[in-house]
Amino acid sequence: MLEPQTPVAPHPDIAHLAPLLGTWRGRGQGEYPTIESFEYLEEVEFGHVGRPFLTYRQRTRSADGSRPMHAETGYLRALPDDRIELILAHPTGITEICEGTLVADGAGLRLELDSTSIGRSSTAKSVTGLGRTLTLDGDTLSYTLRMAAVEQPLQHHLAATMQRAN
Amino acid sequence: MLEPQTPVAPHPDIAHLAPLLGTWRGRGQGEYPTIESFEYLEEVEFGHVGRPFLTYRQRTRSADGSRPMHAETGYLRALPDDRIELILAHPTGITEICEGTLVADGAGLRLELDSTSIGRSSTAKSVTGLGRTLTLDGDTLSYTLRMAAVEQPLQHHLAATMQRAN
Repeated sequence: MLEPQTPVAPHPDIAHLAPLLGTWRGRGQGEYPTIESFEYLEEVEFGHVGRPFLTYRQRTRSADGSRPMHAETGYLRALPDDRIELILAHPTGITEICEGTLVADGAGLRLELDSTSIGRSSTAKSVTGLGRTLTLDGDTLSYTLRMAAVEQPLQHHLAATMQRAN
Repeated sequence: MLEPQTPVAPHPDIAHLAPLLGTWRGRGQGEYPTIESFEYLEEVEFGHVGRPFLTYRQRTRSADGSRPMHAETGYLRALPDDRIELILAHPTGITEICEGTLVADGAGLRLELDSTSIGRSSTAKSVTGLGRTLTLDGDTLSYTLRMAAVEQPLQHHLAATMQRAN
């Protein structure tokens, strides 16, 4: 069996990210010049395995809950000097590496990330740039996402607010 | 709540990949010119959410089970004409897109995949090429992985064999 017999303590290098650990649920809104605006339900999970990164998994459904929409999965790496790297795979055929910084912001955290590498499979849409801002304030996690895609410049695409579910 | 109220049926476009669904556990061996050879325990999970891809998650531990080693997470996309795309994030700061074909092989499946895009964060090692062969034969899943990294040419790196756990 691969599961550890006892829970593993978080690696010391992710102590400042520990407030993110857990499951978050809430709602978001999306817009982009090439599509109709839309609303969605979202669930985000941050976990750890005792190493200096968080595991990350995200899923969204249509606002009425009936239909799966987007998903992402990957890792948030903690580096010296409050540098962070988000390493993601998307089922749309896109990979994403965003790099940035973590700022302790009053009682919470703010993560500012911009893409440094985007991979596209043969069948993926032409996403060319991404930027993310995550803000943790108590038990509220919110984010905005900026995207350059289908020949549009980098611009606001998504905003969501979630509450801690466990 | 984001969980569907009832289990979702697999999307028709992943019917040929359905034998992969489930959890697999076993052992592997790694070698590379720049490191000492090693053995590991591995767990692989393929799931689905009702859309035309499988979710994929992999973890390895040291052969005595005491220490987490590698992990990967992402998606296996099913495309027309038995084309497949594997879209992965690694906690080492690497993203991987491998493309290839699925071959029905007697009672099983064989997936042949080669990298078409590898992303590296600022702090990642210089992995430049990957190739994967997965073979499913009844309740046995095995794979080999080829890697070009740290200025070495593409060559054998990993082999593992797993049995269906559920």
